[in-house]
Amino acid sequence: MEAPEDLFRNVIEEFIPFNKHLGFKLKDVKEDFASLLIPFREEMIGDPRRRSIHGGVIATAMDTVGGAAGITTFTSFDDTLSTIDLRIDYLRYGQHKDIICEGHIIKSGKRVIFTRMIAYHVDDPDTLIAEGRGVYSVIRADLNEDD
Amino acid sequence: MEAPEDLFRNVIEEFIPFNKHLGFKLKDVKEDFASLLIPFREEMIGDPRRRSIHGGVIATAMDTVGGAAGITTFTSFDDTLSTIDLRIDYLRYGQHKDIICEGHIIKSGKRVIFTRMIAYHVDDPDTLIAEGRGVYSVIRADLNEDD
Amino acid sequence: MEAPEDLFRNVIEEFIPFNKHLGFKLKDVKEDFASLLIPFREEMIGDPRRRSIHGGVIATAMDTVGGAAGITTFTSFDDTLSTIDLRIDYLRYGQHKDIICEGHIIKSGKRVIFTRMIAYHVDDPDTLIAEGRGVYSVIRADLNEDD
Amino acid sequence: MEAPEDLFRNVIEEFIPFNKHLGFKLKDVKEDFASLLIPFREEMIGDPRRRSIHGGVIATAMDTVGGAAGITTFTSFDDTLSTIDLRIDYLRYGQHKDIICEGHIIKSGKRVIFTRMIAYHVDDPDTLIAEGRGVYSVIRADLNEDD
Repeated sequence: MEAPEDLFRNVIEEFIPFNKHLGFKLKDVKEDFASLLIPFREEMIGDPRRRSIHGGVIATAMDTVGGAAGITTFTSFDDTLSTIDLRIDYLRYGQHKDIICEGHIIKSGKRVIFTRMIAYHVDDPDTLIAEGRGVYSVIRADLNEDD
Repeated sequence: MEAPEDLFRNVIEEFIPFNKHLGFKLKDVKEDFASLLIPFREEMIGDPRRRSIHGGVIATAMDTVGGAAGITTFTSFDDTLSTIDLRIDYLRYGQHKDIICEGHIIKSGKRVIFTRMIAYHVDDPDTLIAEGRGVYSVIRADLNEDD
Repeated sequence: MEAPEDLFRNVIEEFIPFNKHLGFKLKDVKEDFASLLIPFREEMIGDPRRRSIHGGVIATAMDTVGGAAGITTFTSFDDTLSTIDLRIDYLRYGQHKDIICEGHIIKSGKRVIFTRMIAYHVDDPDTLIAEGRGVYSVIRADLNEDD
Repeated sequence: MEAPEDLFRNVIEEFIPFNKHLGFKLKDVKEDFASLLIPFREEMIGDPRRRSIHGGVIATAMDTVGGAAGITTFTSFDDTLSTIDLRIDYLRYGQHKDIICEGHIIKSGKRVIFTRMIAYHVDDPDTLIAEGRGVYSVIRADLNEDD
């Protein structure tokens, strides 16, 4: 199943109200991978002294790109997924600049999808701000339970 | 150290821009505990078909109440904490109604604070939507490393 | 489906070689709950200076009681489960005495089971050594995917 | 601080009773990295039908190599670390063959060390059986809290 980039752009930027509200932009999508841009906004600040981004913004972006990466492994347009659990390690304070969040598939199984996410400033891809794991339940329309 | 409820209300509702932006309201705070209200808003929706809340809103609330519960264990006004990691189990879809998120201290040590968080609809406290864990690094101004 | 205590005792004490090797003993089992005893042995030590138990022994016990609690929610003898993920917070050093490990069901769904585990010394149930979460994939023989 | 490989071999193979009991062997150690071999033994089986290894053995190995990787970042022989939390994603059933478990440093800070672990069969390094995260509290003898 090939999902066009426009479909992913629409899901991340328009279809999901909270993502749209935060201004997330699809950056890239391909098999087993999706990334998005978090354009920094004052209202995303979580620590006013450091002016660093709220961990919740990063959690939201991670859940979003993990799910989007999972969608790239769908085998039918009727497949659906939902988040089972999400785990984030906060490695460094984010500065007041744009952040990129990537989602990578670790394993996409018949019933469960495992993903790894990373977040970094747009101008420093080698220094991770946060790293995450998302586990998703997937219902594959084309597969029987006994497969 | 006794921290007045007004201080916590200010931290959750005014001081942290992202919490203020989402409209979180302090519900209750006491030793080893803090809770907040997430007033449901259309822009918080994460799944438009179910009109359920975005997991990122719950993650944001959990990080906030876990941190607030941690602050109740401060022994000095100069203590600081930061989130090490956050883990959330998404148990059920949230409906389009207000949600309460509670943070409980599991253990507040010299260097690390462990918290447990739960989220439920305001009219159904017995049915959890999500459950979380937050681990925080605390720097206690009054303690020496060797204590 | 009612599973007799003997069946659980056999699973924990005999059927699973690694549990048997470590000498785990079933303590109690009922709906949505299972607990086991870890009889302390010298070879379980993880930190020789403190003579405290290895975190891996506790992880093994938590995976075991979480799975056993999950089995209490089976609706058919043909149901099966496998661990998706396991997370453990190490709250305190274990002393060189017997430890009890409990598994509680948080939610047992059609496809996924969420559990919470705790571990404490047998003579001090109020002081947790560790707390954990296990998420299990369950295949229920009696349910169709579309239920 | 340079720690000789013999020191690590001793820690993993001799000093820690539970590791010794399970027969873990140090495979490799260098800056920010440690790996060990789990020689498969019948008593490590967790699922007798599949003859696959118990998740607890992998959890034990992951905690061990994560800690060993952390030790490679010590700046003094008086530094100490302890596990804060451990999280494991079980991706596939392990077969009855030897397994390698690697620990990589994600970030080694003044107070907290973040690690990532992977496990795979010795003859198939590209297919992960499990992936994990360990967060460790480190007390660095040479650093003041205010650094």
